[in-house]
Amino acid sequence: VTLTQQTGEHPQTQATESCINLGMGQPSPGLLPAAELAELAGARIGRDPLLLQYGTVRGAASFREALAAFLGNAGPWATSGEELMVTGGTSTALTFASQQLARPGQRVLCEDPTYFLARSIFEANGLEVVGVPVDRDGLCTEALAAELARDPGTAALIYCMPSFHNPCGVTMSAPRRLELIELADRHDLVILADEPYNLLSYHGAPPAPLFAEDQGRGRVVSLGSFSKILAPGVRLGWAQASPALLARIAGHGALESGGGLNPVIAAAVHGLLESGFQAQHLARLRARYARTSRALSEALRRHLPDAVFVEPAGGYFTWVDLGLGPGSSTSALLERARAAGVSYTPGARCAVSADLDRFVRLSFSFYQPDELERGVELLARVAGAHL
Amino acid sequence: VTLTQQTGEHPQTQATESCINLGMGQPSPGLLPAAELAELAGARIGRDPLLLQYGTVRGAASFREALAAFLGNAGPWATSGEELMVTGGTSTALTFASQQLARPGQRVLCEDPTYFLARSIFEANGLEVVGVPVDRDGLCTEALAAELARDPGTAALIYCMPSFHNPCGVTMSAPRRLELIELADRHDLVILADEPYNLLSYHGAPPAPLFAEDQGRGRVVSLGSFSKILAPGVRLGWAQASPALLARIAGHGALESGGGLNPVIAAAVHGLLESGFQAQHLARLRARYARTSRALSEALRRHLPDAVFVEPAGGYFTWVDLGLGPGSSTSALLERARAAGVSYTPGARCAVSADLDRFVRLSFSFYQPDELERGVELLARVAGAHL
Repeated sequence: VTLTQQTGEHPQTQATESCINLGMGQPSPGLLPAAELAELAGARIGRDPLLLQYGTVRGAASFREALAAFLGNAGPWATSGEELMVTGGTSTALTFASQQLARPGQRVLCEDPTYFLARSIFEANGLEVVGVPVDRDGLCTEALAAELARDPGTAALIYCMPSFHNPCGVTMSAPRRLELIELADRHDLVILADEPYNLLSYHGAPPAPLFAEDQGRGRVVSLGSFSKILAPGVRLGWAQASPALLARIAGHGALESGGGLNPVIAAAVHGLLESGFQAQHLARLRARYARTSRALSEALRRHLPDAVFVEPAGGYFTWVDLGLGPGSSTSALLERARAAGVSYTPGARCAVSADLDRFVRLSFSFYQPDELERGVELLARVAGAHL
Repeated sequence: VTLTQQTGEHPQTQATESCINLGMGQPSPGLLPAAELAELAGARIGRDPLLLQYGTVRGAASFREALAAFLGNAGPWATSGEELMVTGGTSTALTFASQQLARPGQRVLCEDPTYFLARSIFEANGLEVVGVPVDRDGLCTEALAAELARDPGTAALIYCMPSFHNPCGVTMSAPRRLELIELADRHDLVILADEPYNLLSYHGAPPAPLFAEDQGRGRVVSLGSFSKILAPGVRLGWAQASPALLARIAGHGALESGGGLNPVIAAAVHGLLESGFQAQHLARLRARYARTSRALSEALRRHLPDAVFVEPAGGYFTWVDLGLGPGSSTSALLERARAAGVSYTPGARCAVSADLDRFVRLSFSFYQPDELERGVELLARVAGAHL
């Protein structure tokens, strides 16, 4: 596998034929629906030249309605275009939302480990990031409550990934979701729920977006994305929240000035929603990743029988405790692993303040089962010398 | 003229058949190259499906080289892809650049009046915006020097529009440009030069981007955009700066995470640069706006002979002192003007702290000469009662 473009998650590393990079959090090039998007991108501009004018800040109403219908088909929760706003992907949405919902100097509580670039996005806003433990039921709400009690009034936001967590792969339990929203309500906080993986469930129905539990309290912004269910290059996503909360985010000067984000691409993706292609494509992705996820888990059990991990039920990632011996760490091991032909994301890269140097984040989105098997075999060989 | 979409600059107002909105800072729908973009958007994805993958943070190298060639053709200054970074338009670029180059609590010095939404973008970053006067030679560098001396060490950025200023329409003189960069160098500041209108010059060659005077000092980021020379809906622009300064901006977590901005649209626009269409289109726009600009100036002289304005040599805007009598203001007059069938941007909307209530900002980008003439006639009728 040769990939000439860099990846947003790993700007410094690239997959090459000589290295299986299990850290790559991006889809396999063969899964990108180029022909379908190519046809629609042109057709939609031709049909509606005003797409090239400044658009509406929250995105075209017709697109938001089509998106609401698509999201409503995923499970027993309905939504409407009024509860949706188009974004240019979750990364930039985090910038704009956290600027509108928090002031510099305030704190963001988030899972530890968390998505490493989210942390730097909050810090660029002058926000202080504080980690809260996560276990196999997701964010530990008890620890969150204790942290909120310890330093009351300083936090403005909770940032979390309730479903198929990056890097842990776990999904937050129903009771914890309710406790989380209850805590946000009590402490006057907004929860930014980063949910790009919800629809990528491999054993049964997708978990609900956290917003489905908001029940009119205006505490939750669920951030979704087409990056993982369609293509990262479209730079298109959505925020799902109460109209009042969306109005606060949409009040950002950069969004008002630009007239919304990516109206042309949104129109093309609108076509994929209407034609049913997006739903079919999602079904294909779920079948494919169910297979590669299983292959990675089996390879881990075969080659690293003492490694500890929760087999993911969705998403892109498996979080593995390699159980290295004292004095050893997955960060320190990385160079040797690369020389042996395998790479990964060291746990420390995802840490806020916890010591996570025993862990690695492995992804099963990019490679085929045989490559995953080979990658884990190489990893076992390198790690085996350090147990 | 009916326009169903909102405009980023005026989300609350729309042009309708019953009102000529001279405040609208956007191109006329007939000037949008829909057919050309439609063809290329599809063709480029078809040719390079990896466009749909995460891209490089600074934008594809081949696109940046083509952009450098296009910009280098505009005047006696060369640039290279190494000095360019792709943005999603200037509004979002201001967010990311100012986050990377300033800390919350620091000050941004900018022209008073200035582009009103830029101000709110800086304030969302926790920056304090301080106004500096502008006259017919652009930003008053003497006043800037005095402000920097008055409160040294508190500013991080200077934000300005050196060419065809919004709203004033003026262009900064050569000596002032040098003084400006000299001041930035002396006080360790970065200048964010907002330059979407440079190429839209109607009397002779376009003014240089401010970066052309940077001379390796690493003090200037020139922000360009395809919004005014191609189409606002493409949400595509560029930052031109020293590689070191670009690296600081490109280090933003949201850009690393998303893998750059709008790679698909950039590829389509790449086609327009290569084919020569963009250069031809720019020539068409210059001819058209030279005509409408002249029409607006003539209408002002005919119907408002006592109004004071500098006839713009480029850009979108004419800044007019209506010379209203005591107790009257263009803000207060707006409702009556709308009832009479004409609208505008009141000067106070563009003010940082100066009293600019005698002024209006009029745009000549959206309408044909006869509509401009009619709009000014209506404006004169309303204003005439308040002189």
